This record gives sequence, structure tokens and C-alpha cells, in this order.
Amino acid sequence: MTNAKVRVELTQNPKEKVPEDKLGFGTVFTDHLFLMDWDEENGWHDARVVPYNALQLDPSCGALHYGQAIFEGLKAYNNGGKVYLFRPQKNFERLNNSADRVCLPKLDEEFALEALKEFVTVDRSWVPTTPGTSLYLRPLMFNSEASLGVHPAKKVTYLVMASPSGAYFTGGLQPMRLYVEDEYVRAAVGGIGFAKTAGNYAASLKGQLKAQEFGCQQCLWLDAKEHRYVEEGGAMNVFFKINGEFYTPALTGSILPGVTRDSMLQLLRDRGEKVHEARLDVNELFKQAQNGELEEMFCTGTAAVVTPVGTLVRQNHETGQLEEVSINGGETGEYTRSLYEELTNLQLGKGEDKHGWLVEVCDAE
Amino acid sequence: MTNAKVRVELTQNPKEKVPEDKLGFGTVFTDHLFLMDWDEENGWHDARVVPYNALQLDPSCGALHYGQAIFEGLKAYNNGGKVYLFRPQKNFERLNNSADRVCLPKLDEEFALEALKEFVTVDRSWVPTTPGTSLYLRPLMFNSEASLGVHPAKKVTYLVMASPSGAYFTGGLQPMRLYVEDEYVRAAVGGIGFAKTAGNYAASLKGQLKAQEFGCQQCLWLDAKEHRYVEEGGAMNVFFKINGEFYTPALTGSILPGVTRDSMLQLLRDRGEKVHEARLDVNELFKQAQNGELEEMFCTGTAAVVTPVGTLVRQNHETGQLEEVSINGGETGEYTRSLYEELTNLQLGKGEDKHGWLVEVCDAE
Repeated sequence: MTNAKVRVELTQNPKEKVPEDKLGFGTVFTDHLFLMDWDEENGWHDARVVPYNALQLDPSCGALHYGQAIFEGLKAYNNGGKVYLFRPQKNFERLNNSADRVCLPKLDEEFALEALKEFVTVDRSWVPTTPGTSLYLRPLMFNSEASLGVHPAKKVTYLVMASPSGAYFTGGLQPMRLYVEDEYVRAAVGGIGFAKTAGNYAASLKGQLKAQEFGCQQCLWLDAKEHRYVEEGGAMNVFFKINGEFYTPALTGSILPGVTRDSMLQLLRDRGEKVHEARLDVNELFKQAQNGELEEMFCTGTAAVVTPVGTLVRQNHETGQLEEVSINGGETGEYTRSLYEELTNLQLGKGEDKHGWLVEVCDAE
Repeated sequence: MTNAKVRVELTQNPKEKVPEDKLGFGTVFTDHLFLMDWDEENGWHDARVVPYNALQLDPSCGALHYGQAIFEGLKAYNNGGKVYLFRPQKNFERLNNSADRVCLPKLDEEFALEALKEFVTVDRSWVPTTPGTSLYLRPLMFNSEASLGVHPAKKVTYLVMASPSGAYFTGGLQPMRLYVEDEYVRAAVGGIGFAKTAGNYAASLKGQLKAQEFGCQQCLWLDAKEHRYVEEGGAMNVFFKINGEFYTPALTGSILPGVTRDSMLQLLRDRGEKVHEARLDVNELFKQAQNGELEEMFCTGTAAVVTPVGTLVRQNHETGQLEEVSINGGETGEYTRSLYEELTNLQLGKGEDKHGWLVEVCDAE
């Protein structure tokens, strides 16, 4: 499949581009889509780049009813006249792990990357150039079979869409407030939490709204079993600097193995820091925040790369009162800032790419 | 909204009907769809019955990426020349509970029922008449907003589709073998298990395939916390007759509150049986099956109404061997059969409808 051809049908009606300072997230799409089909008889076939258009789906389409859908998120950057991807191999590796969990067919990862590069090349004029902007890429695989039977898809669609995205922080890094969610859970061990699959996101909305009601930007998810061990911060992985060492929740099956998480672990190890993937008790963290041992805290994800956490908020269920603790006085930690700068510089080709994380796609327009 | 009009646009190209003895499940659809839209500004609007057709969805449609979709399943029966629904109010009540959990807008339950009746009336010629057949109705509500942002839908589609369905058991009740799944979990307390939402079904596929590998039709799900207490059997609720009394798992938040489960509980109480909604330890159940105290076991759901369980299978993780126990010698229990007959007779209008469960729709054609 690696040498399979990608058919390209260019749009006859290019869209007008949105000015780069008006870009938000996920509402502006490029001129084209990448599409590929799978069925039991033919496997993956008909890889094609076509004009961006609505999908025609039977109302019984399995993905709509049964959530058999998985996705990825990664970015293309314009680094001084060339377009680069950052560690795209990790995304396709994870996509295949997600596919296995919800019984979707695997992709040939090498072909998927070549096809992605071809797609990005077609839409290269959409890669924005303002600092902090990027072309967000969204691979999506879903059950497109017309059947109400609950069974693994016999017909599957894989697509990639692209969305030019604005700078996440326009006024510098902004520390978040996180609400410790101890009622709703995002995922359980034995469930689908490690997979980037549709249902995890629907499950997270209610907690997210609750966090906002309590004046927080995101919630801090705890484990499903004891509601005590930290899992994720919103839809991001989470890191702690405690007494000069670094901690992030171990991947126990209910946590998404973030690509940025993995890059951050490598970057910290490259700096010679002590890094622990561990089980982190939220009660301990509150104490450590209060006595200053918890020096800094931040979240990692593709969208914002690094987001500092300034405040943790939780409800005392006996009194109904909210308790909050600040971390580093509620401000962005200096170490967190240096990590953000190092990682974003790497993505923009400004650092030494010692692990070969940048993948060149094409010349920018 | 209750008096809102439903616009009806009849098809100009009625489909040819599939013979009733060739009907399976969920692949044949009627001539029409019911559709209704919601957005923040207008609320629910444009209720309409239109010719069955593909949906046009933006590739960024929130339901495809984030599983923000909920559904229901119920049946219309041709009872001697009239079309009836069975307890449809319970389905709309549950749909609204599901909506709340995944942050979708609620329906006016009374209007939804009136609209459903109008839709079924339009497609009444599709209600099959052979014993055991029915017109399966599938209400579906999903996020149809074109945005990759993870947030509650700002644009929602509600539809109802209808599928004439064949008899579930063609050769009489068939006892199932259930595989006790102690690795994968369907749902956790605090999660979305009580909601009829897309992600629960994607999460269940892997366990289902594993059960089949072990020669079983479905798996018996256990709780996410201790992998010890029974939750559901496949996508059905589960009942046990132990020492002459009846047991079903209590609704703790991770179990779907089945309409058939509720009807079964009422029917058992009407018969004067002792009924317990309880926490049921699978290890105890194995012992009770071995010593004959577990007299009968069956699952309940809309599709099959009542399905007997003849055998429980589990893996001994120390030896890798499979252990199995049979219930009532692996045969359909007489009491289970009598419950199946009483409930299906009620649905077909042959029993005394003392709880007012049947809702008349229209004359059949």
C-alpha cells in the first residue's frame, strides 16, 4: 500500500482565506479533504484528495449511533519557508492503537504519513505564518456502514481535514484554574480512555461545564475507582514539579498517551531532570501546594502545547464550600515557561532537532 | 411546542418491500425519516417527515468526532389491524436523561410522542404482521455543528428512522452462553453507562468479539471498580431466579435502565414474586449455579424481549483454563418461558393492559 497512488482532484472554487489574526480553532477549513475507504473485501482503497465538501451519510451510519470513531490531532508549521510536521509517526501509531480498542481496521502507518504529506502539499497555501499559528490536521476514521446492528464496521471511512488555527495564547501564557472533578469520571481502567475515540469526549462535556460553573477553565479528572488519583487536566496530560523533580500520571489504561506528553518527558530527561510516571494522590497534591513543595504545574497537549496551572479548586462535600490552593502564587512558573519556549522553538525548527522529530513536507507558498 | 405542526413531504419513489420472512435487523429502512433541528437561537424547529435520504454532514460534525449522540429503540406492532407502541413515554424520558448527561438539549416529551405517532402513521404500511416481527423505531439525537471545538453542540439534529424487523427467535427461545468479561469494562460509576449514548456501544465491541472467540454469544459485564459485580449481559439487562426469588443489578449509574427491565420488574411484582434490585457478586452466582440455587437466568431488551441464559463461561487467570457452569441444565427455564410469553402477549395486545402500556397509533393498512 505504501506505493499506492493518491488521486488528486483540485477544487475549482478556492475559498477566500480568513486573515491570520482572525483565526480561532476548528471552524475554518481548507479547500480539500483527504479521503480513503475500507471494506472487508477490498481493504483500504481509493485514496484521494478532493474538494472540501459535505459527507453523504446514511442516517443509520454506525459512527453516529454507536460512536465507532477515532481521531488524531497534529499541526503543520511554516518554518521559514518550509512546511513541517511534528512527530506525525506518533499520531499514526496511536491511531492504530485506538483502532484496535474499538475494532476498526488499522492503517498502513507509512502510507498514512505519505498521504498526509501529499494532502498538506495540496493545501500548503493554507499554512499560516504568524507566530503561534499553524495548520491543524485532523485525521478521522469512522464506521460508515448503513446498519443499526451493533458490530464492528464492515465499511469504514478515513479522512483528514485541515483547519488553519490562530495563536492559542495571544497575551502570553495564561495560568488556568482547574476544578477537581470527583463525581463524573472520564474513563476507567478496562475502558476506552487510552484511545482517542469519540465517546471519551462526549463523556467529558458535563464535567467541563461544571468546572466552568465553579469559575475554572478545565477540570482535573480523577481515577474511576477511588476518585483520588489524578488522570488528566481537561483534554490534556498533566505535569507537576515537586521539590525539584517532575511527576506525571503513569499510563494505566484510562489516560490518553499524549504525543506532547511524550515529547515533554524526553525534553525533561534531556535536561537531566528526575522524572517520575507515578500514581498521584490529589489530597497529597493539595498539601504539597499549600506547603510550597508543589512548585509548578502545567498541562500538555497539541492545541496549546504547554498550559500553566495556577490554581486548583475542589468542593468540600461535607460543608459544600469550595477550597482552593494556588501554585507558584497563581502565576506561570519560570521553569514551565522555559519548557514551553524550548518545545515551541523545537516545533518551529529553532532548536536542535536531536531526536529527528521534525518531518519536512514541502516548500511553503 | 406540543401543538407544533409536523410538515409532511411524501416520497415520490416508494421502495419495494422486503418479504417478511427475509427481514433481519437494522438494514431495511422505510420510505421516510422524521427530522427536527435545534439551535441556540431557535430551539427545536422545523419538525418534518421527509423521504428517506442520506444526511449531508460537514466532515467536522461534532457527533462524528466527539460522540455527542444519544438514541432510543422501541417497536411498533400490528395488533389485529391496529398499530401500537409499547411504553414509548419511557423511551422519551430516558432520551432526555441521556441528553442531560452528554449536554444535548431536551425534547418536549409529549410533542416527541405525537410526532413519532405521526411518522409511524405515514409509514404504517411498513409495520409487518408475521408473529415476532415489528417495526423497529430508532430516535437519534446528535451534534450536527460544523466545528472541531470540544463543547456542547450549538446545532443539533433529531431524527427518527424506522426499520421493519424479523422475528428474533425463529426456532423458539435459544439459551445463550455468556462470557464473564473481567478485563474490559463497559462503563464506570460517574461515567456515561446509564445514558443511551454512542460511546458506550463502541466501548463494548471488543468484549463482544472476545466473547465470540470463547464460543459465547454475548459477554456478561462486571463493574469497573472491582470486576466482580454483574452489570449487563451484552447490551441487555440481566435477571436471576435464585431459590425462588428474583434478582437484577441495581441501577448504580453504570447500567442502562432498560424499559423491558422495568416492565419485567412490574410483571414479576404483579405476579407476587419477591424481587430484589441488588449488587450481585459473580463468584457467588457461579457457586449458586453449581449447587442449583441459581435456577434460571435471562436477559431483557427491546430487540429480543427475553433471552434465556443457559451457560456462564469464565477464564481462570491462574491456569488460563475456561470454567463453565450451566443453569437449568443449559436449557430455557419454564419460568423464563412464561415471562417471555406474558410480556410478548402484552405487547401484542393479547393480555390485560392493566398498566396502560399500549399506545394506539393508527389503523394498520
